[in-house]
Amino acid sequence: MRTLTELGNRAEAMLAELAAFSDDDGKLTRLYLSPAHRAAANLVGAWMREVGLDVGEDSLGTVRGRQKPTMPGKAGNRRLLIGSHIDTVVDAGRYDGMLGVVAGILAAEEIQARGIELPFGLDVLAFGDEEGVRFPTTLVSSSAVAGCMISSDLDACDSNGVTLRDALVAFGGYPETTTAAAYARDEVLAYLEVHIEQGPVLEAEGLPIGVVTSIAGQSRFSITVTGEAGHAGTVPMALRHDALAASAEMMLAIEAVARGGRAHQMVATVGRLRVRPGAVNVIPAEVVFTLDIRADADAPRLSAIAELEQRFRQIAAARGVSLVMEKFYESPTTPCAPRLQEAFVGAARDLGVAERRLASGAGHDGHAMHHLTDVGMLFVRCRGGISHNPAEFATVDDMGLAVETLIKAIERLAADAVSSGGPT
Amino acid sequence: MRTLTELGNRAEAMLAELAAFSDDDGKLTRLYLSPAHRAAANLVGAWMREVGLDVGEDSLGTVRGRQKPTMPGKAGNRRLLIGSHIDTVVDAGRYDGMLGVVAGILAAEEIQARGIELPFGLDVLAFGDEEGVRFPTTLVSSSAVAGCMISSDLDACDSNGVTLRDALVAFGGYPETTTAAAYARDEVLAYLEVHIEQGPVLEAEGLPIGVVTSIAGQSRFSITVTGEAGHAGTVPMALRHDALAASAEMMLAIEAVARGGRAHQMVATVGRLRVRPGAVNVIPAEVVFTLDIRADADAPRLSAIAELEQRFRQIAAARGVSLVMEKFYESPTTPCAPRLQEAFVGAARDLGVAERRLASGAGHDGHAMHHLTDVGMLFVRCRGGISHNPAEFATVDDMGLAVETLIKAIERLAADAVSSGGPT
Repeated sequence: MRTLTELGNRAEAMLAELAAFSDDDGKLTRLYLSPAHRAAANLVGAWMREVGLDVGEDSLGTVRGRQKPTMPGKAGNRRLLIGSHIDTVVDAGRYDGMLGVVAGILAAEEIQARGIELPFGLDVLAFGDEEGVRFPTTLVSSSAVAGCMISSDLDACDSNGVTLRDALVAFGGYPETTTAAAYARDEVLAYLEVHIEQGPVLEAEGLPIGVVTSIAGQSRFSITVTGEAGHAGTVPMALRHDALAASAEMMLAIEAVARGGRAHQMVATVGRLRVRPGAVNVIPAEVVFTLDIRADADAPRLSAIAELEQRFRQIAAARGVSLVMEKFYESPTTPCAPRLQEAFVGAARDLGVAERRLASGAGHDGHAMHHLTDVGMLFVRCRGGISHNPAEFATVDDMGLAVETLIKAIERLAADAVSSGGPT
Repeated sequence: MRTLTELGNRAEAMLAELAAFSDDDGKLTRLYLSPAHRAAANLVGAWMREVGLDVGEDSLGTVRGRQKPTMPGKAGNRRLLIGSHIDTVVDAGRYDGMLGVVAGILAAEEIQARGIELPFGLDVLAFGDEEGVRFPTTLVSSSAVAGCMISSDLDACDSNGVTLRDALVAFGGYPETTTAAAYARDEVLAYLEVHIEQGPVLEAEGLPIGVVTSIAGQSRFSITVTGEAGHAGTVPMALRHDALAASAEMMLAIEAVARGGRAHQMVATVGRLRVRPGAVNVIPAEVVFTLDIRADADAPRLSAIAELEQRFRQIAAARGVSLVMEKFYESPTTPCAPRLQEAFVGAARDLGVAERRLASGAGHDGHAMHHLTDVGMLFVRCRGGISHNPAEFATVDDMGLAVETLIKAIERLAADAVSSGGPT
């Protein structure tokens, strides 16, 4: 039985080994179905075999390590899925995704080593397409596992014109049998994932881990404000229809509304903005900016959008500018199952860690897995909230604590399954 | 003696003739020292000769039509200068600049036709470099006339690598004798210019003409706000250092300060803005925007800048972002001489036009001429406030009224000179 520090050290060593597999020299880039992904999948499979799991790869390249129930009959033939992804963004850190796979393998190993009996099977999954960098798709591999993959995604092309289908064949996958990757709903107990927070909340509060309440739904808009160009020297302030000044007022409204939605962990961001004509001495005639808004549930997000649209219309009317607000992306909120949150919270409490629940503002494989089963997620503090960057970092202590929390949460789920006397 | 309508019709006909000379097919573009400028200068010279002026061109290509004093001895050998420019921007209108030259020629013609005696000479000037489009210089020709030309401007190159010096030789000018273009201060009585407003004020108030109080001074800044990039989904609002949200607050401060300076005809514009990294789902780390601020006098403009800088620093401090504010251009205010304003106001009153004084937010040749002598300007209403655009338009009636106001203002200056019994 490993101590927290030993678990953390082992996790760190495994992450360092994985980080060696990159498609780029001198930085970590591991895109879906690339040679580096192939090598990483092989290593993950080898680790799984070492800890006694029955290893395979599904049609989409997801590595699966299976452990049979050690208390058969109690929870039927159900399987508890534990996973995350092993693909990365370009010039990535080594924790995002990989930590969840490593945590699953270490948990499986420890459960055996400690002789913990489970009334359900345990499947550790290493997904390949979470970042959505290579192809204009996202979550293809977890969607296949969840039975909600869109088959036309196989026709998506990367920037070299290679289709996902051809890349999959080269990788060793089976594009013709993607539906075979899906679990049946009644076969699965739940899906658990350990992931770095990718944000600064836990660090700011001095907490090593936190329990995810939901994966935030999000809406993205393109907002076009059209005013009237004019000479910066000759048009009095009162006669202007300045598209940028109007946009500035809208941006502050966005900030105010998001701040007001703190109880729902609302965040809203204007990340892109373009001004036309864009000359020092010309009053802006047109501004196009984006709005990305997220919250821990759909209702507050949708109500904030409605409020913003109303405020935008008031601002536009008062300034004599016109407004077009177009939604170009929306994903609903993925709630984390209360029973899985309780399992993590209870496990953390047993380890002396203060309870902290928070929504995930970033997207995760759980978003797809929610179509199949209940989702639970555990966040690990990361330095400076930095992710998608080589500076991404989580401490050995925090990682060890996260693996132990995962183990204790699995024990709690096992106890629940036993006490309920059947499938939960 | 022409009626107002006849003067307006003649002005319109002359402007139409001038508009035929363009460097581009299908639109009006007449850059300094270009073939179209040569042709336009020839036509202007021919018109001047037709109305009995003594015509020449100075070293910088400014066409000059001179009329001797008809009451010699009263105002010494002083000369009243009346001018504007015959160069244009790319895809220009036909009124900006040209109207002032045409008005000067028509005034000189009418003064003779009506037998009005003047105790000073009258020089009509057609400058060539007001727009500053071809070379990275501006007001070279009026600066030479005013004796404040910077000789290194001759080395400026256009986009084809042609120096102003060589272009001047090709045009027929004399780069070696630019100082000879300057008038002596004691030789000049004043400089008058008729120009379209290039703004919407007169139109909004239903007035055909207005008297300029000053040519606005202006300052231009580049403002860099540096915050911290972050994931749009994972960084709570309270932990953000969003460079664009901070900039939005600064932009509204700019607008508020400029609105507060209405008594000084203050205007302030953010015309250019760039966001980095500029991704939908990334909190902006850096924003660079420009500020162009103008007023009818230097003191209120400089005090507004000081207030803005203070507000920017407060906003930056409150948001934990940093601020760099760099001035990259400044020109002082050019006041219009009260006695010349009175001459125009009195002339307009005699013609039954309500008094309206306003500052010019745009720059003009008067800016250079102020180094030589007192400056007076008369603005003519232009449709929609539109300028630097083929849609630029002034009515025949308004132009006729402007020419007549110029004539009556010249008569008033003559009466002043006579009653003061000598040089004014």
